[in-house]
Amino acid sequence: MLASRRRSVLAVDLGGTKIIAAAVLSTGEVVSRKYFLTLADEGSRSVINRLSSAVAETMAQAKLKTSDIAGIGIAAAGIIDTNEGIVTTSPNLPGWRNVPLRDIIAERLGLTTYLINDASAAALGEHRFGAGKGVDNLIYLTVSTGIGGGIIIDGGLYLGADGCAGEIGHMIIETHGPQCNCGKFGCLEALASGSAMTRESVRRLNQGEKSSIIRLVDGRLESITAETVSLAAKKGDPLACDIVARAANYLGIGLANLINIFNPELIVIGGGVSKMGNILLAPTRKTVREIAFKLPARTVRIVRARLGSNAGIKGAAVYVFEQQPKGGRKV
Amino acid sequence: MLASRRRSVLAVDLGGTKIIAAAVLSTGEVVSRKYFLTLADEGSRSVINRLSSAVAETMAQAKLKTSDIAGIGIAAAGIIDTNEGIVTTSPNLPGWRNVPLRDIIAERLGLTTYLINDASAAALGEHRFGAGKGVDNLIYLTVSTGIGGGIIIDGGLYLGADGCAGEIGHMIIETHGPQCNCGKFGCLEALASGSAMTRESVRRLNQGEKSSIIRLVDGRLESITAETVSLAAKKGDPLACDIVARAANYLGIGLANLINIFNPELIVIGGGVSKMGNILLAPTRKTVREIAFKLPARTVRIVRARLGSNAGIKGAAVYVFEQQPKGGRKV
Repeated sequence: MLASRRRSVLAVDLGGTKIIAAAVLSTGEVVSRKYFLTLADEGSRSVINRLSSAVAETMAQAKLKTSDIAGIGIAAAGIIDTNEGIVTTSPNLPGWRNVPLRDIIAERLGLTTYLINDASAAALGEHRFGAGKGVDNLIYLTVSTGIGGGIIIDGGLYLGADGCAGEIGHMIIETHGPQCNCGKFGCLEALASGSAMTRESVRRLNQGEKSSIIRLVDGRLESITAETVSLAAKKGDPLACDIVARAANYLGIGLANLINIFNPELIVIGGGVSKMGNILLAPTRKTVREIAFKLPARTVRIVRARLGSNAGIKGAAVYVFEQQPKGGRKV
Repeated sequence: MLASRRRSVLAVDLGGTKIIAAAVLSTGEVVSRKYFLTLADEGSRSVINRLSSAVAETMAQAKLKTSDIAGIGIAAAGIIDTNEGIVTTSPNLPGWRNVPLRDIIAERLGLTTYLINDASAAALGEHRFGAGKGVDNLIYLTVSTGIGGGIIIDGGLYLGADGCAGEIGHMIIETHGPQCNCGKFGCLEALASGSAMTRESVRRLNQGEKSSIIRLVDGRLESITAETVSLAAKKGDPLACDIVARAANYLGIGLANLINIFNPELIVIGGGVSKMGNILLAPTRKTVREIAFKLPARTVRIVRARLGSNAGIKGAAVYVFEQQPKGGRKV
């Protein structure tokens, strides 16, 4: 641990749209940071090539020698077998099935490599350097196109038996609800994510409801995003307000479930949709107070994340610095 | 720990119908065990008197001196503030509101006392002496009139910030579902518990559906229990089979949610309804395989509890022997 203090981790956040690579110190300081496009449609081989180049370029830019590097930490969207270093499946990386990403990168770059889920990494990042500092038990949620989660128990990242714990977005809260990206019905993600809000807007506009959303996208319904809905809601558009309120209610039910199960001190909400702020979070908190048991509802604080898009890389770095006994491919 | 090995815990399981009191050794051996009626309708003062008598009688029957006793461990149904030793509210103990049960008993009997939730205690009991021996991460569910839960993380009982974690029965899985005993709608307990099956039977029989259940209760629908439904289902009664299948499906959805969130090695199911065995658990497992992500679904085993009605007292004893730093009232 002492030896690694002066060293860096090459941290990577592999998302469906972009790859962020950075050198991160054990203090959480980001020394070097680069963006690359994922171009996920080109398939896993091509993405893995870009990922290795990203790591190599970051290493060069930060003027790091191999001996300066504690390891590589990759945070990736999807169901990750952390023990084996495998992306088993990923909604954002179409076609990826049981890709042994950890070992491929470890062998190519000759560095000890770890692979964890991106929301788990963000939970760890927010716990060590962001909104969750000093808190023993917290749940982290990222609400963006999808909904991901990470769990901190007794001050450490909880990953479960295979390392894929934390799939909060696929908690079913409305058995007969709309279909989710995962194929199941009524998941929290299908009801409260950015894509859920977008889909609901399009559905209701197609049914002939009036809304200023239409003007905001120049009549092109396919251009609607959660940001459009947020913008319209902030200006008081009734349809947009209703859609946000509906998503907030479902988010509140999801959080109440987690509060009744985990009795956490803190829930940290990150991701693009959380930038809506209080128009989403105020009604979410109200639902939590109505639904969760009084004792855990009184204890929990629900706050916004602080690290933005750095949460994942900082958390991936922490994970490597802590040298988990399982999950790392030593080379 | 060594000193306490030869000592006993006076363990109590305080339920809505009966109080079980026993002397339990650190090996899990139950030296003395007595039943008492709770008579919850008589109110908290009366129940607390019976509980102290039960403990005193057990101590006398086991011929224990104060110096032989490591402490008193009480497992009680309800939302328990373990840190403060308070029954904040309990579905089975009507009228109990913020009753400081731990301190009342500690003062009356002059012994260090601990108070935890009954399903959390049962989780600990099954983990140390029953179906969960040697497993790091498990979820325990008791399915009876209601549904309770307990969580074992990294080999220890997880209680959360206040000590009330594990309220799995009140995870909402059908937002627009039937009302639960807790007042909310669509909780797992309202859909998959014994009382849910009973209520659904009565509702459908009242709508004129035919079933052998009516004969089993001599036409008195108010006498229907989950056991009646189970009996009819085992004989192939179509209505009973449908009701069990429906409950099993919801139970499977609840378990799939837990599997996606916790990625546990094991789920242990206890409680009266679990005695139905495979007519309930086979379709439950099928739903789990359909709903949960492949990786955690492949890992988890779903098994029946082994300790029966001793799980709570054994777990309460373990809790005391482990001398949790928080939650005990030292006298």
